[in-house]
Amino acid sequence: MRDYPEFENPQQRPRYTGLPTFMRTPYREDLEGLDIALVGIPFDGGVTNRTGARHGPREIRNQSSLMRMINQATGINPYELCSIADVGDAWVQKPFELTGALQEIEDFFQMVHQSGTVPVSAGGDHSVTLPIFRAIAKDRPLGMVHFDAHCDTGDDYLGSKFHHGAPFRRAVEEGLLDPQRTIQIGIRGPLNDPDVWKFSEDSGMRVVSIEEFYDSGWRAVMAEARKVVGEGPTYISFDVDGLDPVYAPGTGTPEVGGFTTHEAQQMIRSLRGLQLFGGDVVEVAPPFDPSGTTALVGASIMFEILCVVSESVASRK
Amino acid sequence: MRDYPEFENPQQRPRYTGLPTFMRTPYREDLEGLDIALVGIPFDGGVTNRTGARHGPREIRNQSSLMRMINQATGINPYELCSIADVGDAWVQKPFELTGALQEIEDFFQMVHQSGTVPVSAGGDHSVTLPIFRAIAKDRPLGMVHFDAHCDTGDDYLGSKFHHGAPFRRAVEEGLLDPQRTIQIGIRGPLNDPDVWKFSEDSGMRVVSIEEFYDSGWRAVMAEARKVVGEGPTYISFDVDGLDPVYAPGTGTPEVGGFTTHEAQQMIRSLRGLQLFGGDVVEVAPPFDPSGTTALVGASIMFEILCVVSESVASRK
Amino acid sequence: MRDYPEFENPQQRPRYTGLPTFMRTPYREDLEGLDIALVGIPFDGGVTNRTGARHGPREIRNQSSLMRMINQATGINPYELCSIADVGDAWVQKPFELTGALQEIEDFFQMVHQSGTVPVSAGGDHSVTLPIFRAIAKDRPLGMVHFDAHCDTGDDYLGSKFHHGAPFRRAVEEGLLDPQRTIQIGIRGPLNDPDVWKFSEDSGMRVVSIEEFYDSGWRAVMAEARKVVGEGPTYISFDVDGLDPVYAPGTGTPEVGGFTTHEAQQMIRSLRGLQLFGGDVVEVAPPFDPSGTTALVGASIMFEILCVVSESVASRK
Amino acid sequence: MRDYPEFENPQQRPRYTGLPTFMRTPYREDLEGLDIALVGIPFDGGVTNRTGARHGPREIRNQSSLMRMINQATGINPYELCSIADVGDAWVQKPFELTGALQEIEDFFQMVHQSGTVPVSAGGDHSVTLPIFRAIAKDRPLGMVHFDAHCDTGDDYLGSKFHHGAPFRRAVEEGLLDPQRTIQIGIRGPLNDPDVWKFSEDSGMRVVSIEEFYDSGWRAVMAEARKVVGEGPTYISFDVDGLDPVYAPGTGTPEVGGFTTHEAQQMIRSLRGLQLFGGDVVEVAPPFDPSGTTALVGASIMFEILCVVSESVASRK
Amino acid sequence: MRDYPEFENPQQRPRYTGLPTFMRTPYREDLEGLDIALVGIPFDGGVTNRTGARHGPREIRNQSSLMRMINQATGINPYELCSIADVGDAWVQKPFELTGALQEIEDFFQMVHQSGTVPVSAGGDHSVTLPIFRAIAKDRPLGMVHFDAHCDTGDDYLGSKFHHGAPFRRAVEEGLLDPQRTIQIGIRGPLNDPDVWKFSEDSGMRVVSIEEFYDSGWRAVMAEARKVVGEGPTYISFDVDGLDPVYAPGTGTPEVGGFTTHEAQQMIRSLRGLQLFGGDVVEVAPPFDPSGTTALVGASIMFEILCVVSESVASRK
Amino acid sequence: MRDYPEFENPQQRPRYTGLPTFMRTPYREDLEGLDIALVGIPFDGGVTNRTGARHGPREIRNQSSLMRMINQATGINPYELCSIADVGDAWVQKPFELTGALQEIEDFFQMVHQSGTVPVSAGGDHSVTLPIFRAIAKDRPLGMVHFDAHCDTGDDYLGSKFHHGAPFRRAVEEGLLDPQRTIQIGIRGPLNDPDVWKFSEDSGMRVVSIEEFYDSGWRAVMAEARKVVGEGPTYISFDVDGLDPVYAPGTGTPEVGGFTTHEAQQMIRSLRGLQLFGGDVVEVAPPFDPSGTTALVGASIMFEILCVVSESVASRK
Repeated sequence: MRDYPEFENPQQRPRYTGLPTFMRTPYREDLEGLDIALVGIPFDGGVTNRTGARHGPREIRNQSSLMRMINQATGINPYELCSIADVGDAWVQKPFELTGALQEIEDFFQMVHQSGTVPVSAGGDHSVTLPIFRAIAKDRPLGMVHFDAHCDTGDDYLGSKFHHGAPFRRAVEEGLLDPQRTIQIGIRGPLNDPDVWKFSEDSGMRVVSIEEFYDSGWRAVMAEARKVVGEGPTYISFDVDGLDPVYAPGTGTPEVGGFTTHEAQQMIRSLRGLQLFGGDVVEVAPPFDPSGTTALVGASIMFEILCVVSESVASRK
Repeated sequence: MRDYPEFENPQQRPRYTGLPTFMRTPYREDLEGLDIALVGIPFDGGVTNRTGARHGPREIRNQSSLMRMINQATGINPYELCSIADVGDAWVQKPFELTGALQEIEDFFQMVHQSGTVPVSAGGDHSVTLPIFRAIAKDRPLGMVHFDAHCDTGDDYLGSKFHHGAPFRRAVEEGLLDPQRTIQIGIRGPLNDPDVWKFSEDSGMRVVSIEEFYDSGWRAVMAEARKVVGEGPTYISFDVDGLDPVYAPGTGTPEVGGFTTHEAQQMIRSLRGLQLFGGDVVEVAPPFDPSGTTALVGASIMFEILCVVSESVASRK
Repeated sequence: MRDYPEFENPQQRPRYTGLPTFMRTPYREDLEGLDIALVGIPFDGGVTNRTGARHGPREIRNQSSLMRMINQATGINPYELCSIADVGDAWVQKPFELTGALQEIEDFFQMVHQSGTVPVSAGGDHSVTLPIFRAIAKDRPLGMVHFDAHCDTGDDYLGSKFHHGAPFRRAVEEGLLDPQRTIQIGIRGPLNDPDVWKFSEDSGMRVVSIEEFYDSGWRAVMAEARKVVGEGPTYISFDVDGLDPVYAPGTGTPEVGGFTTHEAQQMIRSLRGLQLFGGDVVEVAPPFDPSGTTALVGASIMFEILCVVSESVASRK
Repeated sequence: MRDYPEFENPQQRPRYTGLPTFMRTPYREDLEGLDIALVGIPFDGGVTNRTGARHGPREIRNQSSLMRMINQATGINPYELCSIADVGDAWVQKPFELTGALQEIEDFFQMVHQSGTVPVSAGGDHSVTLPIFRAIAKDRPLGMVHFDAHCDTGDDYLGSKFHHGAPFRRAVEEGLLDPQRTIQIGIRGPLNDPDVWKFSEDSGMRVVSIEEFYDSGWRAVMAEARKVVGEGPTYISFDVDGLDPVYAPGTGTPEVGGFTTHEAQQMIRSLRGLQLFGGDVVEVAPPFDPSGTTALVGASIMFEILCVVSESVASRK
Repeated sequence: MRDYPEFENPQQRPRYTGLPTFMRTPYREDLEGLDIALVGIPFDGGVTNRTGARHGPREIRNQSSLMRMINQATGINPYELCSIADVGDAWVQKPFELTGALQEIEDFFQMVHQSGTVPVSAGGDHSVTLPIFRAIAKDRPLGMVHFDAHCDTGDDYLGSKFHHGAPFRRAVEEGLLDPQRTIQIGIRGPLNDPDVWKFSEDSGMRVVSIEEFYDSGWRAVMAEARKVVGEGPTYISFDVDGLDPVYAPGTGTPEVGGFTTHEAQQMIRSLRGLQLFGGDVVEVAPPFDPSGTTALVGASIMFEILCVVSESVASRK
Repeated sequence: MRDYPEFENPQQRPRYTGLPTFMRTPYREDLEGLDIALVGIPFDGGVTNRTGARHGPREIRNQSSLMRMINQATGINPYELCSIADVGDAWVQKPFELTGALQEIEDFFQMVHQSGTVPVSAGGDHSVTLPIFRAIAKDRPLGMVHFDAHCDTGDDYLGSKFHHGAPFRRAVEEGLLDPQRTIQIGIRGPLNDPDVWKFSEDSGMRVVSIEEFYDSGWRAVMAEARKVVGEGPTYISFDVDGLDPVYAPGTGTPEVGGFTTHEAQQMIRSLRGLQLFGGDVVEVAPPFDPSGTTALVGASIMFEILCVVSESVASRK
């Protein structure tokens, strides 16, 4: 019909044109033969203070038009290594009921997982990682490299056990996450309960506070991260509030004093060679991000995760 | 101790000083002898699209420092007529469960009502008006003058019957709102279901579309409003999305083409002499209101409602 | 695969989900059997002061998620009357060359026109209406109802004859626009050249200044508009700078003192029954619209145009 | 040297270029032969709540680049009628001392006045109009058409009698302003002191509340304004808070429910033929105006004032 | 009355609820038995360029709701160590007169000091530290750890000796500050007068430029800081413009190239064990901080100061 | 006339006053005897994605009022060393034609160069550096220290060879830039074409990726920079997207993970002693910089460049 169909190599078009899919990848509903699915999860029903992450996928897609194909630092071109598409949103039909909503999200990822496709997702609040794990880790627990200001291993809060401060406690309890193969990087901020993250340490997770991070440097931390997760199947979860709020103001629970985007990029790049089975970027809350800064950072981090995941997926093909 | 205790005539202080109570009224926890309670309801669990109204009370309080004591247009000084205080927030301890949360809000207003105090409230989303009615209208149904772009008499949506598009259907069903004594002003915007507001007309509410509003003018509409609600007990509910979005951009469901703040002020002022038993301003969503415009408008409208309610309360003393 | 494919009735989904097509219509590349094509034109190469309208289609799509199916004021449901889809962007491959770019845009609309589909478009700056006319009016000139602060019938400026202040002079010169069947509404703002819009009057266009507009009222103006364009084929072109800047701050050439969105809606609705062959909304410039206000207005106006155009297209089927 | 010296017809250049003088007029320090001086007064030492008007002149200059030469509504080209230049700022060397600062401002306007030049100024807060009067009205009192939400005839406040809520009381007391020839239009907003504007009425000023304004319409109000000021020498003072805050959010004391920019433009245009000896636009506070809306409105109003003043000045030449 | 009185453990409530006191501490007017008073000083009469810090206390209170009770890095829970309350604002009744205003502020702190309470304050501009010293250091001079881009030891400017660039020169001259026990960290930015900070060096203060800071690292700088202030009574003064403007854009005199919030946090934490008698965070100017970033940083720094001060106060009990 | 003419030592005035020239230097049109010309280049016709840099000079001028005379870190006072003035804008009369526009810019710099004046410029997009080179390097090629996220040595794109991603390829091809004496610092971001910057390496430029930059530190990089450019004539070109986007959000092609403003300042300062013949700051795009952050950074960097260039120019006098 015309010589530039919408979803055929959209990455070569001027970046302000067209429907904003993740990374300007083609949009597909048929997962057949797809190696990696880019998924949006517009859900923030687990937030305890400032909501808005439900709008995250749309704005991350929007800003991801600034991405291109090849990672200049590592040389990885994920689109050469894998078949990759934007498969749309894992949206929920009953957003008012937290447990039901998590079930709906799980169903979506179940479908992705069963087709043999590895998900790289954009949240949504951090409660969504639990249903992702329920879908992709039910056969064996995953290890995890977790970037965040908070351990997210809290207990019930405000009457719920599934809020965005608790997913990894639940994931361990349900046998989906191997705490011995989990490292949490960037932890900081004042606490109300001195034992709020006690579950992390009791269960054997490696918790790297921001103070330790800056004392050791990202290289040492990531060397340890590689040791912690080892050769087993591993997931990357990146909460943008791990970054300093200047890089990610648009988030629900900002904590000043975090790491930089350069450090984040270097850390993710240093995960090359691991057995990666998925990843996510969560807690981008556009209503608190009028300039789009946080969504651009979210897209950039999602691209870095996509690069290392695609190399890992390709190595298993 | 010092000559300017915080809550003693704070309205005479420079407006950028002090804790921002509603209208710079004293803060009180003891309702004894209070005629009118200014209440915040930081809850947006009933929102179907853009959340954020949970932050409404705080920002309305903040901007309400720009208010002063006497209504220049009507001469009413509510603080001379009634004992008025900010009594804090009807906050919910279990925000993740919609029906439970509405119960908590009802309990708070029950307490206010039982002490003989009339509430003038700031939301929160429009779902909060239902528990207010459950507290203050359980003895006899109220009439209502309702400013809004939406009738809010919809049915179940996304699995819930208590969302912010349905409170007045529920209130009629529960015998709390008299549809024959209800007028809804400013209705507009595209619909997905042609019958979405059918309940309003079937139950006998008077629905004034924005087109009719501009054809007739606010004077004629309000003359009819007075006729509709008559001499019976009446409530004022003001959803800021009734205003054109330029006056109230910070709201969950903006619909272009609404009325102006001047018209809103004149309409509320024309309710003098009615038997008023409360009022609210809802759907101010600060995350979508970076300049504070909407919160200032919310505070200004709340002041107008306070003026006519105080005169009515004083007349019954 | 799953029970909610992306483009199957997306208007029933929560509005913050999914790829933002215009009005949440399905995305289609095959025009076969399509009655109306919603088209984005991300081009602002004709702007003389503040660029940015190239980002207009994306943000109008984004905000158009707030639209629904049925026009509450007129009862029109365009989706029942016509087959309507988002067909993507008429993007240009050589944005640095103004005349070539206009040719590329013309080619796109040529394709739309040849398939028998009527375009309703979102710009882009106002220079894009010229290539639309070249595609759809080459057989016979169109009449036009034109909302704008400027007549856009200027002459060469800064070395170009195809900038955004001149399209309608060119369209008349090329026999694409019938000046006798053209009305321009909302004209205002200071001038550098007293004769800058002389072409409008010399060629027989009806020019309605904002002062006349407010003296006569929108009803009288639209009665005349209907008389001017008569029974012949007609186009609607809506430059958002016709509105007052408070409704449309995000535009390249704001002029204070314009009409309101309510008036705009009423004016477009009063075009029912005309022989409409397309329409556009132009000059939404997102970089000057941080709050999204202008894009929401643009989407709302585009919906109004879609309603009257769809009724006209359906009447000719 | 080159063919486009900075200050030679800058109004014909692209509007984003060059040093932003008022209206892109030439900058001049020598007042010799100048008919009208455009003056900035970057002073906000009289503000009682939100400061920031000190940045007003710079941003009004910036946005005034959007102005052009000829008033399309009235046909007036002030630059043909008069010699007009930007003469820079009446800045104060001792901003920390209010009375001294007002003296410094007076000295500047003294200089302008003595050279036979008529000032059209941009504030600054409203306290600056007093020293302007002291300079230009010392020989005989002026009448005034005053647009504002506040009468600004208050008494001492927070220990000062020269704050921005009192200049016109002082001007009357000092014999500079003739209250019988003064009309104040747009008055509204809640009051702390019922008698705060009593001086206006006691002294014989005509006070037009916003309610009366909308009851009568701008034509009737301006007919009366012309009668009030009559044939005597007259000044125009325009506080942007007379406008509704949607048109002028960036101001120190916003009051919802004001008039529109279209109405403001029409009102000023209807002052043609009066004996005008100056005018000002005050209370544009850029820190509260991130989008530049208010500064653009300020520049547009200043242009309207310039048009009617220039016609009056030309008629006296 | 109800089970959650406003000021009883407000730190456990959802953070968007209630009146925003500093750190969600109880509000108290009675200082009896209070160890530490959190004080707001809404005064910016000493500012030489961009005012707005008068709004600082309110927005710092607002953002401080994101704080919690325990410092995760140091384990300090100030609320266990000391009795702490928000005691309101040291507001001034005569803001137009700089010296009188400073006297009013002094009086307030006099009252705090006489009750044996240690103040931790939020400004306001930096001129307010002088009256704090006059109240709390009149018996013996204090040492100071001073974070800032400017030494603030300038001389008269624009006719005043009490502006925000001079407080520490005055404090030394009045015998309130011991220059030999003072260290100033983060100094940078272009100068107009090469000797503007000469007083610092002449009087024996230790001035650490940002260049030296980054050459030595924060650990070395703080080791020296501890040596400089020694065992004597010490005060912490933190001007947010010491931080890089990306962390604190909302301030009156930003200077690019400052330190990070992480470094600031580490530096304050390293002051544990000193004899601390108060501290302040100044120059947060909300009108230049639309996103609230700077106020959140201000609250976070205030929390760090509170932690080390509370430990010191507790050690002296 | 008065005692403070506009352009006589404006750097001593309050910073919010007066016409905003670069650094508050005098404005001059006569280049006679001028050592350094500060030039604005309001042109963004070479931008491939987000335009807006045409507004850069005006906002950089505006924010440069915050600069002062003496560089505190190096002690350089450029105004003592050289005669420096703002000479206005190299604006183009035919912005719609890219090659013609570049010719117009070249003509302006030709004039500057012929008068023996060294230009320090503010863009504009990076395409403007090519015509600067054509004017000032036509006699012998220059070396260059180039700060940027992109090498800008790409080839034709979207039909043009003169866009903002290619100037330095053209400059080498035209013999204006010596690639062996060129170093590019901060290079990063994803690529579409693995060979897009191949020209840099093939031609012998030294390319320092951001990863290498952070591995080596700025001191080592700048030591090498000095070695690369050596004793020959050298130019400094600073694209603000070399900085991390938190320091420069307002730019056309942001790439996360860049260097800091402190590092940038230190790098430029370390160029003292080179033979410098000009410099520029480009790609400040105010429409994407609502807070002015990027313009302030642009002004600060321009001041640093001015300092080292002025010292070099003075050394050659």
